Order: sequence, then C-alpha cells, then structure tokens
Amino acid sequence: MTEPAITYKLIKEEKNTGARLGEITTPHGTFQTPMFMPVGTLATVKTMAPEDLKVMGSQIILSNTYHLWLRPGAELVEEAGGLHKFMNWDRGILTDSGGFQVFSLAENRKITEEGVHFRNHLNGSKMFLSPEKAIDIQNKLGADIIMSFDECPPFDESYDYIKNSVARTSRWAERGLKAHAKADKQGLFGIVQGAGYKDLRLQSAKDLVSMDFPGYSIGGLSVGETKEEMNAVLDYITPVIPSNKPRYLMGVGAPDSLIDGVIRGIDMFDCVLPTRIARNGTCMTSAGRLVVKNAKFERDFRPIDEKCDCYTCKNYTRAYIRHLIKADELFGLRLTTYHNLYFLHNLMNNVRQAIMDDNLLEFREAFVEEYGYNKENAKLF
Amino acid sequence: MTEPAITYKLIKEEKNTGARLGEITTPHGTFQTPMFMPVGTLATVKTMAPEDLKVMGSQIILSNTYHLWLRPGAELVEEAGGLHKFMNWDRGILTDSGGFQVFSLAENRKITEEGVHFRNHLNGSKMFLSPEKAIDIQNKLGADIIMSFDECPPFDESYDYIKNSVARTSRWAERGLKAHAKADKQGLFGIVQGAGYKDLRLQSAKDLVSMDFPGYSIGGLSVGETKEEMNAVLDYITPVIPSNKPRYLMGVGAPDSLIDGVIRGIDMFDCVLPTRIARNGTCMTSAGRLVVKNAKFERDFRPIDEKCDCYTCKNYTRAYIRHLIKADELFGLRLTTYHNLYFLHNLMNNVRQAIMDDNLLEFREAFVEEYGYNKENAKLF
Repeated sequence: MTEPAITYKLIKEEKNTGARLGEITTPHGTFQTPMFMPVGTLATVKTMAPEDLKVMGSQIILSNTYHLWLRPGAELVEEAGGLHKFMNWDRGILTDSGGFQVFSLAENRKITEEGVHFRNHLNGSKMFLSPEKAIDIQNKLGADIIMSFDECPPFDESYDYIKNSVARTSRWAERGLKAHAKADKQGLFGIVQGAGYKDLRLQSAKDLVSMDFPGYSIGGLSVGETKEEMNAVLDYITPVIPSNKPRYLMGVGAPDSLIDGVIRGIDMFDCVLPTRIARNGTCMTSAGRLVVKNAKFERDFRPIDEKCDCYTCKNYTRAYIRHLIKADELFGLRLTTYHNLYFLHNLMNNVRQAIMDDNLLEFREAFVEEYGYNKENAKLF
Repeated sequence: MTEPAITYKLIKEEKNTGARLGEITTPHGTFQTPMFMPVGTLATVKTMAPEDLKVMGSQIILSNTYHLWLRPGAELVEEAGGLHKFMNWDRGILTDSGGFQVFSLAENRKITEEGVHFRNHLNGSKMFLSPEKAIDIQNKLGADIIMSFDECPPFDESYDYIKNSVARTSRWAERGLKAHAKADKQGLFGIVQGAGYKDLRLQSAKDLVSMDFPGYSIGGLSVGETKEEMNAVLDYITPVIPSNKPRYLMGVGAPDSLIDGVIRGIDMFDCVLPTRIARNGTCMTSAGRLVVKNAKFERDFRPIDEKCDCYTCKNYTRAYIRHLIKADELFGLRLTTYHNLYFLHNLMNNVRQAIMDDNLLEFREAFVEEYGYNKENAKLF
C-alpha cells in the first residue's frame, strides 16, 4: 500500500469548543491548521505574486479545475510540469472538482448518472464532466489536494431531490476514487453534501467515510442559507468525520464564519471573498468593513486599518489607495488584495493562538464586538 | 546663495563619441548616468510596487504634473507630505511641467502670452496653466527635479510658428525661474524646443543657458519625426549645453534611440513605451520585439528573453504569461512590465560599462545586430 499523499496530525483540542489545532503534511510542505486558503482561480491569486503570498504567510492556495480546464487546458499545464511549476508556487495547492462551477457558471446543464453535459460560460461550447474526467484533469494539474466530483444543488432544493443527489454524489465519489491515478502524490477528498437535511448530510458523510478518504470537504454551504443554518449543519457533521482526517469547509471566508467554523471543528477554508471585494475597493479591518474608494477617505491619511501591520497598512494611506482605485491604477488592487488576505491569515493566526490558550469563545466575543457585528451591521460580508 | 538641489558630476567622457558617464545628486539620492526613468503618471508606475522598482534598480521615476493636478490634486499631495511620501518612494522623482499633456491631451486649447486656457480630458472643465502655475503645482508635489512650462508644438510646424513659440517658451522659462519657491529642494530644468529648425533650437538653448538652470531638457522630439531627424537635433544641441549640467531627452525610450541619445551626450531619458507596450503583451528582448500574447507562444515554455535574468524571466514562461494576459489576469501585466523596465535598466547598465570601456560604438553595433534592427524590422518600437 502506498503512503498517503496527505496526512493530518492532531496537535491539540480546545477545551470549550470543537476547535482543534493540527498540522497537514502535503508533498509541498506542512502547514498548521485551522487555516485559510487564498483562491487563485486561473493559476494566479488575482494581482498577487507568489512572493507576496509567501511574505504574508499563505501556505496553500486553491485553484479551479473548471476554469483551468477551459484555459489554458489541463494538458498544457501538465506539459508545463504541473500547476506548481507553471505558476511558480512551491507551496501547497488544492484544486476543486469543477462541480461547483458547472452548477453555478455553466449553461444548459443536463445531469445524468454518467456525469454532467453543459455549455461552458466562455464560448458556449458543449462539454462533459464526469467523476473520472474531473479526476483526470486534476491528475494533470497536479495539485497536492484534489476533490471528488460532486453535485452542488441549491440549499433550498426539495428533500427528494437532495436525497437522489446525495446518493449520486456518493456513487461519483466512489468512481473518482477508483479513477485516481496518483494517490501517492495527490490526496483526494470526498465532499459531503445534503443541503440542510440532517439525515441526508449524515448519510453523505457516512458514505464517504466508509470509502476512507484522506480528508473530507463540506460543500453546499455559503450558498444563500443563513449563518445559523450553516452552523447547524457543521454542528452535526464534523463529529462524524474521523478526527485523524482534515475537514475542509468550502467557499467560506467571512471573518465571523471562519471563527464559527473553527469552533465546530473545521481545519481548512477557502473563499474568493477577500480578493473579490478588494478589487472593488472594500477592505476587511479590525473595525469592520471599510470601502476605501468612498469620498470620505479622500484626505484620510491613516492606513486602511490602524491596528494592522501588513505591507499595505505600514506604507500607504487611505487617501493614496482611494486615489489609485479611482484612477483605475492596478497597484491599488494589489494593495487592497494584500491587506484583505493578510487580515484573514492574521485572524487565523490569532484563532490558533486562542485554541492553544483555550479561550476561543472569549476571542470570538472580543473579535465580534470590535468588528461591529453586535451593532446594526450584523452581516458585514 | 542657496546650495542647488541638483548637482551633476562628470566622471568620464567616452573616447569616440559624445557619451559621458556622470553622477546626479538629488535630495533623494545619487544616481549614475546615463540612465532611464520609468514613468509613474499618477503617482504609481502602473502595476509596479516601489519595491519592484528598487529591486530592478530604478533610481528616479517620472510623474506627471498635469495628471496629478487633475487627480488627486496638488494640494492633496502636499497635505499628504509630498509625492515621495504619498506614493512611498524614497528615491528620486522628476515631474514634467504639464506642457506636453496640455498640448496633446487637452481640448480647446488657447495659447496666450499669459499661459494656456484649455478644457481637461477627463470632464471637459475649463482650466488654465501658466508658467507660474506649473511651478506652483510642482512645488506642492515636491519632486526632486521639476520642469519649466513649455509649448511642445508638432515637429512639422512652420518656421514662423516655431520661432514665436520658442521665444515665448524662453519668456515662460524666465517667469518659471522667478516663481520657483524651492530652489534649495527642487532643481528646475529649462526645456529646449525648436522642432527641426537648427537656428531656433540653438536660440532656445542659448536663451535657457543664459538663465543658468541646474539642468536642461530637450523637448519636442519623439513626436513623429524620424530617428535621423532626432539624432540631427541632438548632434548640434548637446554641445551647446554646459558640460557641468545634466541633459535630459524627454519622452524617448526605444532601445536603439537610447543608445543613439547617449552617443550624443544625453544623460537622462524617460518614456511610457516599456510600460505601455507591456500592458499590451509586448516585450522588449535581446532578440527584438516579442508579442507574448500571440498564439505561437501558447505552449512555449521558455522565458520571455532567454538571455535575461530578471524576476520574470527567471520564474515564468511565455506560455504562463500568455495565459495570464489572455485571461485578463493582472499579474501578467506585472510580469511584462517588470521585464521591460528591467530590460531598459540593464541596457543602460551595459551602456555605462561601454562608456567605461570606450567601446560604445561597437556595443551599439552588436546590440542592433542582435536586436534585429539590420533586418526588415528596422523600426521595432
């Protein structure tokens, strides 16, 4: 039997919550969890150089199978020596399965047992993605952690629909596992689905755990449901995932949701939120959301976040960054992107420290208070 | 009498040409000449961080008075502590006078003895720029080297028009000199005009030299005339500029033109060319122009320039950069911009070495041969 590509080591469980400190070892380095992964959709974290990410402490980034499949193509990336070499990133990479994009971006979807027929969002060409194809593409891309092909239905779909969908996603997971040609180099995670139906979520988890994946993702959340609904799912799902495997909550990046996920035993997160809002001039700060392009910051010579010691906040003012963004200067987007990613990395550093100190609930309370969630702007992101 | 803000030290004259090695000292550092200045129009060299520029060896950058006057405004920059602090750049900055932009970008220009009435290119508002106003704005911006307000007429204007224009530009230079409030902190250069008329160019130079500026710019070139016409002007102009003052050829950045300028005694150059073409996917290389977004580079895993050791060429392939640019990924523009600026800085390093070695003409011949100028593509940029 081959050595698994991905291993998880539990370091410490927090006393008062389900939170845990751990370490994931990948073929491209070991990193502490819980942690946040920046998203580099098209083999680049938009506006960032790999060195920028290293300086701020990114250990693993996410890239998108669907997008890379369309361009530049999986064969081209393979020919380049794989995604790491192609994009000059020697730390960890995780690729998703393409499932989420096929269900959210593509047109004219038709789901069959075999896979999904659809037209892509770029030029409308007919394409087909199956569990085997999703694994094949990801084998070619060569990320450290890869995902099973799943269906990601809306949270409010009917019970019957979700029941069938979950059963199919389990069958697809089994097929992906068999198709996976590089288990010694890439760790394949199964994705738990089931919307908000507890029995279906638990069935999905049970199915996948029986297949013994090196890690488990929780999908189909942060798709329109409330934070309470998301937390409720996590409350009952994480306990049924073996504690010697990493748990990855897909597509979640709001600061309070990260803390809430950690409290419920999540180890890994990814989301386009920090980078996407940055390119719109919106920053995450210790005092809540700051829309730096607003007119009120025209002559504000303070940093984005007075409590932040990132490159952006140490060297540039709100007035300068506002000027850049108003003038369509790309460096402005670099500065806000850097800040937002640093903000989340720093938050996760503090969260890990709170787990060490067994005071994560106090940390959450103080953070949320400072962040302004207790006031009118309860849902900032 | 106050110490001048800008001083020039002649280190060595090349044996066989008018080229010279020198050193310019500014309030923000001393740099070797001949050299090339990247353009940072709106207080940022598009896509670059100040650190990127430092790593590649930029010593002084150019920023534009007209553009900064429109946004964010000279008063705001002054309030921020000046341009250096505003943009986090502690090396040299040079600002132009706004003259070139008023004549090339603005609408409904009306030139009077007092100055120029025009409508700006952003929102069409009425504005007025005079020699005194141009200096006042530049005093507020606080660059190390600033420019007199000049008229920059087309190269093919009539003799009579240019004669009047040159006389007015000399009167404007005199007024700017009187208006300059910070001669101890900012060195004001006069700008030689006169299109292709030798007697008018010489008259312009004579007028300005009599005012004893700390440096002299040569304007109105690279505006549509041939390279031969430009070189002809330089041939007779640089000898009449005192050798203890720096000579700055405005708006020239094509690699062969830089060498040709140096051969004729030019010390400083600026141009948007390397950064502008970079954002269009065009790179300067030792084998000539390379349009990296072209289809033929789709699977080309070589660097942009196989003889280049810049960050971009050491770490990324043509295939990756092409992918980024085709996918509108901003990091692609960082990579091509970095490469092009590095290419020109490296060229100027080699030019300085050739002056030391007294073999600049041989260097030019080898460079032009390698660069492909002797073939059909005589005018690559």
